[in-house]
Amino acid sequence: MSMVIDFQTDPSEYRHWRVEYAGEIANLYMDVEEDGGLFDGYELKLNSYDLGVDIELADVVQRMRFEHPEVKVVVMQSGKERVFSAGANIRMLGSASHAHKVNFCKFTNETRNAFEAAEEDSDQKYIAAVKGVCAGGGYELALACNYIMLTNDSSSSVSLPEVPLLAVLPGTGGLTRVTDKRKVRRDLADVFCSVEEGVKGQRAADWKLVDEVVANSKFDATVQDRAREFADDSIKASGLSGIELKPLQRTFGDDGSVTYSLVEVVIDRLAGTAKVTLAGPEGEAPGSVAELHDQGSGSYLLRLARELDDAILHLRLNECEAGLVVFHSQGDPELVLAHERLLLDNTDNWLAGEILKYWKRVLKRIDMTSRSLVAQVEHGSCFAGVLAELLWAVDRSYMMQDEFEGDNRPMAEITLSNGNFGTYPMGNALTRLQTRFLGEPEAVEAAQTRVGESLESEEAQDLGLITYAFDDIDWEDELRIFIEERTSFSPDAMTGMEANLRFAGPETMETRIFGRLTAWQNWIFQRPNAVGPEGALQRYGTGLRGKYNKERV
Amino acid sequence: MSMVIDFQTDPSEYRHWRVEYAGEIANLYMDVEEDGGLFDGYELKLNSYDLGVDIELADVVQRMRFEHPEVKVVVMQSGKERVFSAGANIRMLGSASHAHKVNFCKFTNETRNAFEAAEEDSDQKYIAAVKGVCAGGGYELALACNYIMLTNDSSSSVSLPEVPLLAVLPGTGGLTRVTDKRKVRRDLADVFCSVEEGVKGQRAADWKLVDEVVANSKFDATVQDRAREFADDSIKASGLSGIELKPLQRTFGDDGSVTYSLVEVVIDRLAGTAKVTLAGPEGEAPGSVAELHDQGSGSYLLRLARELDDAILHLRLNECEAGLVVFHSQGDPELVLAHERLLLDNTDNWLAGEILKYWKRVLKRIDMTSRSLVAQVEHGSCFAGVLAELLWAVDRSYMMQDEFEGDNRPMAEITLSNGNFGTYPMGNALTRLQTRFLGEPEAVEAAQTRVGESLESEEAQDLGLITYAFDDIDWEDELRIFIEERTSFSPDAMTGMEANLRFAGPETMETRIFGRLTAWQNWIFQRPNAVGPEGALQRYGTGLRGKYNKERV
Repeated sequence: MSMVIDFQTDPSEYRHWRVEYAGEIANLYMDVEEDGGLFDGYELKLNSYDLGVDIELADVVQRMRFEHPEVKVVVMQSGKERVFSAGANIRMLGSASHAHKVNFCKFTNETRNAFEAAEEDSDQKYIAAVKGVCAGGGYELALACNYIMLTNDSSSSVSLPEVPLLAVLPGTGGLTRVTDKRKVRRDLADVFCSVEEGVKGQRAADWKLVDEVVANSKFDATVQDRAREFADDSIKASGLSGIELKPLQRTFGDDGSVTYSLVEVVIDRLAGTAKVTLAGPEGEAPGSVAELHDQGSGSYLLRLARELDDAILHLRLNECEAGLVVFHSQGDPELVLAHERLLLDNTDNWLAGEILKYWKRVLKRIDMTSRSLVAQVEHGSCFAGVLAELLWAVDRSYMMQDEFEGDNRPMAEITLSNGNFGTYPMGNALTRLQTRFLGEPEAVEAAQTRVGESLESEEAQDLGLITYAFDDIDWEDELRIFIEERTSFSPDAMTGMEANLRFAGPETMETRIFGRLTAWQNWIFQRPNAVGPEGALQRYGTGLRGKYNKERV
Repeated sequence: MSMVIDFQTDPSEYRHWRVEYAGEIANLYMDVEEDGGLFDGYELKLNSYDLGVDIELADVVQRMRFEHPEVKVVVMQSGKERVFSAGANIRMLGSASHAHKVNFCKFTNETRNAFEAAEEDSDQKYIAAVKGVCAGGGYELALACNYIMLTNDSSSSVSLPEVPLLAVLPGTGGLTRVTDKRKVRRDLADVFCSVEEGVKGQRAADWKLVDEVVANSKFDATVQDRAREFADDSIKASGLSGIELKPLQRTFGDDGSVTYSLVEVVIDRLAGTAKVTLAGPEGEAPGSVAELHDQGSGSYLLRLARELDDAILHLRLNECEAGLVVFHSQGDPELVLAHERLLLDNTDNWLAGEILKYWKRVLKRIDMTSRSLVAQVEHGSCFAGVLAELLWAVDRSYMMQDEFEGDNRPMAEITLSNGNFGTYPMGNALTRLQTRFLGEPEAVEAAQTRVGESLESEEAQDLGLITYAFDDIDWEDELRIFIEERTSFSPDAMTGMEANLRFAGPETMETRIFGRLTAWQNWIFQRPNAVGPEGALQRYGTGLRGKYNKERV
């Protein structure tokens, strides 16, 4: 699996999904092309999926927000007879590397969180209309919808057969959504997760595994009725018309580097680092939301978010050995603030709101990226407002102090905006500053009194906004030593350490999925009982069951 | 490592710890005997520890609660010069099996939680007085104390060098206590956990890693002053005198079975099961707290708790292949309730309070046991009050319904007590019934209206207190099929599933340590970068650093 995986697609290229738009309701059909797998060696039978199928789904969900704001209800359903979805493709999982399995699960988790966010942020509600087998990752797709309807026939069921059949966990939030979102009683959840064939009919509703069970003869009509009712009850504004998300401008280099219009990714494979530089705006902020709409996907903050999102995904899946990601920025902080201010001042405008909500998702994607992250606040940089969030998403930050010889760029500074105090919460539902100052809420208040001021290194350090400030004498050596040391550590220990240090404070369903559930799954993905030659994942489809070492750990 | 590990000890047998009692203050000295390791092949240098050292510490903490209720402040310190503790012994970890490493970390975590519980439950406060090197698990010992004092000299420091030095995580809650208990800023925590040599002097206090830094010349006196101040400020009652925790009565069988006075453990190694039967009281409850004190460690509920606790630890460490633990009880439920009622009615009596708090800890130990757990509520059983908690600690429960042919025992029933509604919270700070009915708080209220009633199977099922009820015709087959199926599943998948399904709802520092942190550590404990032949844990002490696969996962 050494090909470059591309996370960009558009509806003209879809092989696995189709959408029928009908005003406020969109019918989304999963109809996976069997021989359309991202890699060779497996067939995507029974609406099973691999990363390629999920990249399309993520694109559907994203375009629904920006291109189809008129949609209030999305009905997710199968385009095939007798099967909703059989979940992640087992042969693909069996042949994939550990790193691919883990990153595949992470991306699919993020996509499922994105349906839930669509309702929470934009009143775009997802219904799962389940006919036929809905197993494993298929049921996890449904669980991420906020209303599940199941047809009542002899062959339609929901199930999580991973544990009995494959000796792994449901990999995309299934266990957590069963207990924490649907609040299924834990002993019933234990039974449900232990029976390969799953649960069907009224029992599925009684156990809260689905919201509604409908006679098969009335199912399709009832689903559309329900969609209509939800659309009628929606508080989402009506009659909005979207903008087009145009293709990103990108140039890939041979060494994994990528140049976008506003983002530059430079890979140093020998050093194990990626340098990600964000450019400030080329010009003034739009004078009005009308102008913002005219600029569409070319507008600065939307374009930057899309490019940064794509860059992060590229690093995650295609440049696994770039263990340290260093964020830089160059540009005019006042212009960044002006672009953000237009959005913050117009959150009642759907597009302004969507761009801010998208930044929330992109920043969360960075939080969840298992690389060491660092920011360098250099002279000429523009870590202001939303871009300053990066300083608290990273594991540590370095800032230039005083003048540097031969460097005539404007002095390094950080500027806070009101956006830093609630617009971009982390997965734990706190702002990055609240998480940073968990034990010192007064430090958040102190920072808030300085909104709009240019804070040079001494003030930034006093306020606790950065880790270190170094002057011209020390800067280069300190950074070099840090980078050499960091990249010499065990990548696994780094991943575990960062997963624990980044998310202080309360936990949410989201942090539980990425923390507790993911970590247990990663552990199991290493165990011979699952992935060894006699493990269940390897033996799947051979007619032999897994042979297990019975020792409990 | 196939010897039987014994979790029972007493002060006359201590090799690694000593306690000097001086009224309200106890000075606890860690002075590990180098050649006193539990297994061969390593020396416990520099106050490093293995499971044997921790078994003694757990005994100290437990006896402090029951035998020394007069103690208000415990000062944990080193009995050696120039070193507080170097943490878990690395050679022991390097040579231990995966299962031993994981269970070792779990037990040490439970012991550290027990110091914190001593202050929270009984106002018995632990101070860590740190002189010399305090590294890794040594600092985690200190972190579990609620006040850390550090001497200010050139060689005394606190550190978590696991990541840079050993490519594993601090294994006993260190990362979580740094971020969530001490609320160290995350970028400073990142720096702290990346530097082998740690942090010393004033910086340790500035970063909140310790509470107080004291000049070396004044350190010992200041520590005792501080202990005196805390004792004077304590709200704990003065002048209490303890009871003796007498040795447990136990007989071990060759097949791993154990017979206690009230608990019987029967192992079926071929089937992979352990049957744990709890006996009801032999006689009436004590008529008064005076009588309870006279009975001391022979009193029913204290004796049962100690025996059950020991049985669970025996199963965890010595019978790793007993993947399914089946709880039974036999006895008079009214007597169980009477014994519990005496305690619930007298929580202002220290001993009554301590027995209830100990049950809280024992039940949590069961929650955290990575075995499939099931309860069988048979005729003649006594799942009442505190023993009914077991029905919601297990993954699922089965209850006999109607009369069984040839069985003249009293009909199976469950009786709730007020204790089930707040006395024994889980690690997530909810009661087991609140966790069970997370989505239906009204079901908890409905159960509470039935306190004191004998609930037979139909009522128990209607109230949602059990999973299944079967009559004489189905009982045996259903249980047999369940047990055969359950023990055929992958033990690892079971562990992961149970770790996720058991703890719905809010997370606490405790659940984060056992869920998020432990799972990541278990994952790392499987990775070649740590445990492979070129991994850091294997190479420790050879002069070679670990050689790492640089791929990020």
